[in-house]
Amino acid sequence: MSRKVIVADNAGFCYGVKRAITLAERASKSHKSVYTLGPIIHNPQEVNRLASIGVKSSDILPEDKNATLIIRSHGISPEDELFLRNAFSNVIDATCPYVKAVHEAVSTLAKEGYFVVIVGEKDHPEVKGTVGYLEQEGGEYAIINSIEDLDNIEASKIGVVAQTTQNEHFFEGVVLKLLRKAKDLRVINTICNATNERQSDIYRLAPNVDVMIIIGGKSSGNTRRLYEISKSLNPHSYHIETKEEIPLDWLENVSSIGLSAGASTPDWIIEDVKNFIESLP
Amino acid sequence: MSRKVIVADNAGFCYGVKRAITLAERASKSHKSVYTLGPIIHNPQEVNRLASIGVKSSDILPEDKNATLIIRSHGISPEDELFLRNAFSNVIDATCPYVKAVHEAVSTLAKEGYFVVIVGEKDHPEVKGTVGYLEQEGGEYAIINSIEDLDNIEASKIGVVAQTTQNEHFFEGVVLKLLRKAKDLRVINTICNATNERQSDIYRLAPNVDVMIIIGGKSSGNTRRLYEISKSLNPHSYHIETKEEIPLDWLENVSSIGLSAGASTPDWIIEDVKNFIESLP
Repeated sequence: MSRKVIVADNAGFCYGVKRAITLAERASKSHKSVYTLGPIIHNPQEVNRLASIGVKSSDILPEDKNATLIIRSHGISPEDELFLRNAFSNVIDATCPYVKAVHEAVSTLAKEGYFVVIVGEKDHPEVKGTVGYLEQEGGEYAIINSIEDLDNIEASKIGVVAQTTQNEHFFEGVVLKLLRKAKDLRVINTICNATNERQSDIYRLAPNVDVMIIIGGKSSGNTRRLYEISKSLNPHSYHIETKEEIPLDWLENVSSIGLSAGASTPDWIIEDVKNFIESLP
Repeated sequence: MSRKVIVADNAGFCYGVKRAITLAERASKSHKSVYTLGPIIHNPQEVNRLASIGVKSSDILPEDKNATLIIRSHGISPEDELFLRNAFSNVIDATCPYVKAVHEAVSTLAKEGYFVVIVGEKDHPEVKGTVGYLEQEGGEYAIINSIEDLDNIEASKIGVVAQTTQNEHFFEGVVLKLLRKAKDLRVINTICNATNERQSDIYRLAPNVDVMIIIGGKSSGNTRRLYEISKSLNPHSYHIETKEEIPLDWLENVSSIGLSAGASTPDWIIEDVKNFIESLP
């Protein structure tokens, strides 16, 4: 049977990821020893490709103090950045500019006396870096991953930001609930446009195809949220990293397949999945 | 038949109205010639009672420059206040302290470069006074009375306040819509607690009685909103100023009657209505 594969208009690399990859590729050409502390983006296949051109990902600091150290796209705390800059002569900051905007937002809110609510995942590196900026200012804060997490928050002045890749609808729900708690509520909407566009595409595409496949790293938060949205709209939704994870029975008697991918999924993996599906008998 | 009359827990005079009346009564005892510019509160019966003890309500300024002038509970613009203070030696400010908080909120927002959205009635004296504070700071603003009014607003930094007696649910709807427009949205919730309490009581009471009667001035915005909420929950809802407006057929075959009253409705009118209903055969 003929299968139609529809790739979402907005899928794959966002501006911040592209920028980080470019900085890493450029560094690999002019520096001998290049490291990223933790994976530069949450996509193991692309991280492997970078390793093959000399950009090593490590969870521990390299011995060589002359190594070039790249700060990953998710950003780090100001304390960690200071430590790196003191320890290494060559530090390249590949933090996504939209994540830098979150750092600025929480610093401002903390300075102005707001209790800061971060809508995000407590263990995600982006959120950990953001928390560092809050702690630098001595700001009070809470990290919120469910509406119930808000129950214990009592403050008359509350500032709200989001991890750049949060779900916009969930963020709105949080704001609405906080509106009943705070007299002065300042919302700095730090969800990036790329996130909005990718999520909006899923709302349009997922209900109108037989099967929806979301491609991206298993530890990529934004990919996981695309999958969660898709699953809520179409039970035949799947999250894969590569074409090898597609069992043939997913596509039996299926005539339309939607494809999307997280902000850290490279085009070559999306193409690979698309070609594989189209080549099936 | 026996009729049960249930008066809402929170009905009638709020803090700001009580304070204004007390200031007016006190002035009438120590000053000869006492005026309020416009009715001190939106209740003609109480304004008449005050007139009977010497507090005159006028829409034009008195000739006598030694008269005592009372600024009404709804507040006035800073320009008008300055004019009054220059023209009269004795000015008493009976502006509700919660309305003063709105003046402060819009001044702060305008100074910090926010486009200010006022959720309120364009022609209400409270809103007119508030607008004066915005214009003093040269702030950009819009007055919003329906969700559609938001369509033309485009600004990345938006501040929101409300007329103190606005509907909380409508206010939340406005905030939610603005959240999709602004990157930096600062909500200073200036709806006063008294308003919230009176409205919450209506949500509880109106669906559980046969007839709901809301007592208060026909030009009282907060009374009108209590009536609108009540009408949305119980079609047998009526807005009256005094007992004379109750036709007997409203109460035919009716066993339970809910009563509430706006923030500017004096207890003596509420008692009067209650006694009248209970005295009916």
